[in-house]
Amino acid sequence: MDRALLISQVGNIFVEKMPFNRFLGISIKELNAESARIELPWQDEFIGNPTQKILHGGVISAVLDNVGGMLAAASIIHKLPDEALNSVPAKLATLGTIDIRTDFLRPGRGEYFIASATLIRSGNKVCVCRMELHNQEGVQIAFGTGTYLVG
Amino acid sequence: MDRALLISQVGNIFVEKMPFNRFLGISIKELNAESARIELPWQDEFIGNPTQKILHGGVISAVLDNVGGMLAAASIIHKLPDEALNSVPAKLATLGTIDIRTDFLRPGRGEYFIASATLIRSGNKVCVCRMELHNQEGVQIAFGTGTYLVG
Amino acid sequence: MDRALLISQVGNIFVEKMPFNRFLGISIKELNAESARIELPWQDEFIGNPTQKILHGGVISAVLDNVGGMLAAASIIHKLPDEALNSVPAKLATLGTIDIRTDFLRPGRGEYFIASATLIRSGNKVCVCRMELHNQEGVQIAFGTGTYLVG
Amino acid sequence: MDRALLISQVGNIFVEKMPFNRFLGISIKELNAESARIELPWQDEFIGNPTQKILHGGVISAVLDNVGGMLAAASIIHKLPDEALNSVPAKLATLGTIDIRTDFLRPGRGEYFIASATLIRSGNKVCVCRMELHNQEGVQIAFGTGTYLVG
Repeated sequence: MDRALLISQVGNIFVEKMPFNRFLGISIKELNAESARIELPWQDEFIGNPTQKILHGGVISAVLDNVGGMLAAASIIHKLPDEALNSVPAKLATLGTIDIRTDFLRPGRGEYFIASATLIRSGNKVCVCRMELHNQEGVQIAFGTGTYLVG
Repeated sequence: MDRALLISQVGNIFVEKMPFNRFLGISIKELNAESARIELPWQDEFIGNPTQKILHGGVISAVLDNVGGMLAAASIIHKLPDEALNSVPAKLATLGTIDIRTDFLRPGRGEYFIASATLIRSGNKVCVCRMELHNQEGVQIAFGTGTYLVG
Repeated sequence: MDRALLISQVGNIFVEKMPFNRFLGISIKELNAESARIELPWQDEFIGNPTQKILHGGVISAVLDNVGGMLAAASIIHKLPDEALNSVPAKLATLGTIDIRTDFLRPGRGEYFIASATLIRSGNKVCVCRMELHNQEGVQIAFGTGTYLVG
Repeated sequence: MDRALLISQVGNIFVEKMPFNRFLGISIKELNAESARIELPWQDEFIGNPTQKILHGGVISAVLDNVGGMLAAASIIHKLPDEALNSVPAKLATLGTIDIRTDFLRPGRGEYFIASATLIRSGNKVCVCRMELHNQEGVQIAFGTGTYLVG
């Protein structure tokens, strides 16, 4: 079976089969074994401030966690030997975030936002990703580090 | 002016004047200068898994960030001298999360959830809070550490 | 073979067989599958400030990492079935810190220090510990969260 | 007074006036308001493993904390108005690490190591730095995120 197709199917599961992600309205711009990029369009419901139109920190953490988790999933599929590709659903069922750190750099102001992830540790049991959130003008809003259970 | 009243007004701002928190539907169970406790009722829109009814990690981080931020706000008010209490709105306008770490311990399964916070560092510029999330049966689901700018 | 004896032997490896820990001069006060406690005596070489006699942050992180790692090791031994106890050396060879967060609460001033750890997540592949550092008078100096690979 | 000279003097304080840093034997390769780079030569006393010649995690955290702290100090000096440069000693006396996260990526094996830092948030009260540790062959060993009080 085609690995790239499997990775794209897993991306669709994140976007379409998780109700909270449907609420967020994220879409995938890039997803492969090395990097991931998703887009979050602005919604007034994301506001986390009484007077300013800026993203709630929880929305930021959620988007960073999503993009890191997708990349961790893609890296699992990438490393499986051919004969084990039918174990992807079982492997993904155990995928989970162990811990995540979000650093909030600037107010989350924008029309839409791009969250990206790169893999900095890719083990058999644990992956670590670095994530970034920028708005449509390239202003960096947040930075994250996530540790994912993949074994 | 009454400090306890001010603290309770600030709690209301978090719950009622921030659209994302209205979406979450959180309510305050306790809020004073030492500790804070909020409740999150289950909603299907919070699901962050394709097959299981468990909270999305972003919802968990959001609730932990909220309860820590409320406690940081209450501690600001608690420490202001009487003659400075009218500067509360200005002080709160600069309140913000610098960074947050969430440790996910168990799947977020429950009918409702309690997030609590305690202050572990209370400075003039920075507060650090430890937060916990339990479900209605007392099962601990997550643990957080948040650093807040309060100066 | 006796599990408590094995745990105590592993504690000795941390204290006696790791050169940096010999430099630190730590000793074990308690080590079992639920909690760990070690003591660090003051040394002038630990100073991390040009004018004040306070611990370098790196010494604090090192001691917190040690006490969390010891507890992770003890919990591995505790959970092994009897017939697998001879695999302890192999298991410990793969034990490692994935990530650690240290929150510095107060200047590290004291005659000696106690670092303690409790297990907050105990899985087959990953353990998470919370750690604390107090001085001999019970003043809390730092707080840590560590994620350990144990599988 | 010359800002670059002041920054270089502050670097010397880190390297020469802090006993734990003298123990580490670090030296400065680059230090300005945008980035910092220090070198750590191997010493057997840094070993944190009973059987392998690899760095103790505490040594890694210490070096990352140092390079981030130096950069935070340099950025304070860089932003002070000319007429406030004589307040540098007072400002530096309040400089401190609030929290640090270290992600351990690979065993700390090498002849010498380079720790580098870049500023990702530079405020009046708080700075956030990202740090990396590589060995002499460019293999990345660890990654850090540090929040520093600079106000």
